[in-house]
Amino acid sequence: MTSRPSVEPFAASGIGAFDHECGVLVVGFGCAGAAAAFEAARSGADVVVLERASGPGGTSAQSGGELYLGGGTEIQKACGFDDDPGAMYAYLEAALGPNADTAKLRLYCDGSVEHFEWFRERGVPFNPTFYDAPTWMPMSEDGLMWLGENAWPYNTISRPVPRGHRPAAGGFGGGVLMERLSAAATAAGAVTHTDTLATNLVLDATGRVTGAVARKYGNTVTYRARRAVILTTGGFVDNDEMLADHAPLLLGHGKVSDGLDDGSGIRMATAIGAATRRMSVVEIALTALPAMVCRGMLVDGLGRRFLNEDVYPGHWSVHAVKHQPGPYWTIIDEEGFEDVPEPDRWGLRPKHVTETLAELEESLGMPAGSLESTVETYNRHAANGEDPYFHKDPKWLRPLKPPFAAIDPRAGFFGGGTGSATGAAGFTLGGLHTTVDGEVLNHSGVPVPGLYAAGRAASGMHGEGYVSGTSLGDGTFFGRRAGRHAGTAAIR
Amino acid sequence: MTSRPSVEPFAASGIGAFDHECGVLVVGFGCAGAAAAFEAARSGADVVVLERASGPGGTSAQSGGELYLGGGTEIQKACGFDDDPGAMYAYLEAALGPNADTAKLRLYCDGSVEHFEWFRERGVPFNPTFYDAPTWMPMSEDGLMWLGENAWPYNTISRPVPRGHRPAAGGFGGGVLMERLSAAATAAGAVTHTDTLATNLVLDATGRVTGAVARKYGNTVTYRARRAVILTTGGFVDNDEMLADHAPLLLGHGKVSDGLDDGSGIRMATAIGAATRRMSVVEIALTALPAMVCRGMLVDGLGRRFLNEDVYPGHWSVHAVKHQPGPYWTIIDEEGFEDVPEPDRWGLRPKHVTETLAELEESLGMPAGSLESTVETYNRHAANGEDPYFHKDPKWLRPLKPPFAAIDPRAGFFGGGTGSATGAAGFTLGGLHTTVDGEVLNHSGVPVPGLYAAGRAASGMHGEGYVSGTSLGDGTFFGRRAGRHAGTAAIR
Repeated sequence: MTSRPSVEPFAASGIGAFDHECGVLVVGFGCAGAAAAFEAARSGADVVVLERASGPGGTSAQSGGELYLGGGTEIQKACGFDDDPGAMYAYLEAALGPNADTAKLRLYCDGSVEHFEWFRERGVPFNPTFYDAPTWMPMSEDGLMWLGENAWPYNTISRPVPRGHRPAAGGFGGGVLMERLSAAATAAGAVTHTDTLATNLVLDATGRVTGAVARKYGNTVTYRARRAVILTTGGFVDNDEMLADHAPLLLGHGKVSDGLDDGSGIRMATAIGAATRRMSVVEIALTALPAMVCRGMLVDGLGRRFLNEDVYPGHWSVHAVKHQPGPYWTIIDEEGFEDVPEPDRWGLRPKHVTETLAELEESLGMPAGSLESTVETYNRHAANGEDPYFHKDPKWLRPLKPPFAAIDPRAGFFGGGTGSATGAAGFTLGGLHTTVDGEVLNHSGVPVPGLYAAGRAASGMHGEGYVSGTSLGDGTFFGRRAGRHAGTAAIR
Repeated sequence: MTSRPSVEPFAASGIGAFDHECGVLVVGFGCAGAAAAFEAARSGADVVVLERASGPGGTSAQSGGELYLGGGTEIQKACGFDDDPGAMYAYLEAALGPNADTAKLRLYCDGSVEHFEWFRERGVPFNPTFYDAPTWMPMSEDGLMWLGENAWPYNTISRPVPRGHRPAAGGFGGGVLMERLSAAATAAGAVTHTDTLATNLVLDATGRVTGAVARKYGNTVTYRARRAVILTTGGFVDNDEMLADHAPLLLGHGKVSDGLDDGSGIRMATAIGAATRRMSVVEIALTALPAMVCRGMLVDGLGRRFLNEDVYPGHWSVHAVKHQPGPYWTIIDEEGFEDVPEPDRWGLRPKHVTETLAELEESLGMPAGSLESTVETYNRHAANGEDPYFHKDPKWLRPLKPPFAAIDPRAGFFGGGTGSATGAAGFTLGGLHTTVDGEVLNHSGVPVPGLYAAGRAASGMHGEGYVSGTSLGDGTFFGRRAGRHAGTAAIR
């Protein structure tokens, strides 16, 4: 109801001569846009990519660069792991569920080895070495890591095999990834128009999408797309009004984005009757450090554990922010803290150190006896190598003993990067409802002629869950499919 | 992607002669439709109401009939309570939040006494007597009840005043309510076409909504609306595909509906570019009995309490289903059970009765020591009249002592009614994005010409919370506003 720029469509008949014309117009140059542009150009279409920033990359370039890939890649084999698409599917169906998109997931798993090779052919480097400990991101150049496959209950659902593939970059690999993918799209013939923000779709008299209107340096620029428009504009974590309407869990937390994920593509498309799905689903990462959490316990504001601490850290993060009363604390003892390798401490020191749990719970503002009761129960079972509540791996179970310490996750890994006051930051997973070929569907379940979407502008293979590497993974995989489909669509 | 009937709009130019013509076309004859039809007719418009069932009523007629009203109604005064709109607003902003629609809420609270009088003038009977105990629904004819105002933390946010107004009907009052409201709409001049399912909106060449297409006994029937169309078609709990896309929490639970809440109006409107909001927000009711829960405790599948048990039962229900690992159990001791008045037992008997908590937790499949630890902590604090975890009112606090019993909520109140295997049933609260006058907004924040919505086809005053009486309450209140606005809209 506040005044804001219109996202309603333009009629092609009202535009007359377009400023630019191409076969396929890709809107947004993150990983999905790069993959779509590459394949559309390879299919023989002439491709223009619009990017509102001054260069390619988007949120993808600022990510860790993990790619969830498997089914038997060369890196998995080199590290001694035997994988197959069925085991990969079983894990992802559980970890990305409930309500994962099984059709997309099946294609993704069956095509994963080929997709890995596609990255290698584009020059993305992967080292055949394995990092074997709980972490958000190793500060090494190891090319393979666990992403929750080895933790309960997932290790009972599918044979555990690590599938986190990492570009060799020493830390955040998204930059290297996007450098190679954008160069590949350009080499394939895609032309990029930077500083160009698409604002509205263009429709012909039959309701077909035939182009887009954009703003460049304050001027209106029109693009005619003879085959199709592909929206790869990202999610909507940077649009607080959309968050309040569709994904309020993220309000007030940090934003994992390049600052431009304002849902522009989703809004342009829904304005012409496109359907969305899973708009409330989000990923959120708490900044607690996995190496400390797994050696101690993660508790809520009432001093209670709530998940096995050796699970993929995104899982305990989402569980905490979604379901538990905050604040959250990592509780660890001296022996556990000393056991954490120095690089995995990220410079953190405990602020609360006490000889008794009664002192610790009091200093954290928890009810009297709450943390005492939690640790007493934990210790009793840990002494038997058991965790009947949450099934943490016995390798991390040991009765905790004084002195104890509490560590505030707000001081952790991401906290420094994003300045999130809550110690949590996230992004959206819902978006336009698409077919496996990226065609955007209307509310009757029929493709909107001429319109495609991929990446976080679309709802991908995720149900209500997430693990690292599946957003870059499905963005590129279904971006490629959309590019191939749109690149060979009939010319109008 | 499955084949299904189209909800895409029809062009007015393609219809030629319409079968019916009216000023205002109201689609759906539940409480919002009745209120809208009444006011539109009172404003001088000729009104047709389409109802897909064979008579008026909808889900509203099957509800308990509670209306959340206050600010100083005659019933509140007669029962000795002093209320004001500010106190009402403060409670609802918290209970319907976070992210309640403050503009709608302010109008609702300021207009609540007038709205109560409107119901009385339509012949809805209210007794000036007060029911003072935790319950889903008293089996008495008392006209006033608590709806969570007196429980922590709400009693610290706003002076507690009961605002649950109940039509005198001896139990479920929705039938009486809808009988009076539908009669009032008819008496005001609205004409009803039953067995008529609206399927598509009609647009003129400028994009204005000028009518609807419907199905009646297998035939297509067209309606031209000279002023406006008002969608009062209800929510989408009966549409599993929409639930999976937008409100997956309700999948697998019982449905609080007349079986026809399939989101048809929401889909027709989004097909022409209308915006939605809060589509993931739901109400869900667990069938545990408040009179037992408040005298004992409600625990999750790990034997842990999670909320003050004297809060509005919708709150512990939503908290359980949203945030706690199930199954859920009411734990009570013999003294507590014997204290429950016979009518509040609904015939329920405990199935698990034991002398020790160790036996009880084992028979319920909980971790060893879990329930023992919970009850030990609870009893220690209850002996001091305290509940530092959740702040239950001291009047319900008492150390529990053997023998103990566990009661499965799946055997409770609603469970018998809906046959829900989970012991929980709910409905959707999200829908079309509307102004305070019911105008449906597009994705640019501009009203779609000729289109209004109210009731659960729209997102009302709710943020992410709910209390009983606010859905019938805002459906009728904003239904009336939509009817007045549409009834005086310009004729085209």
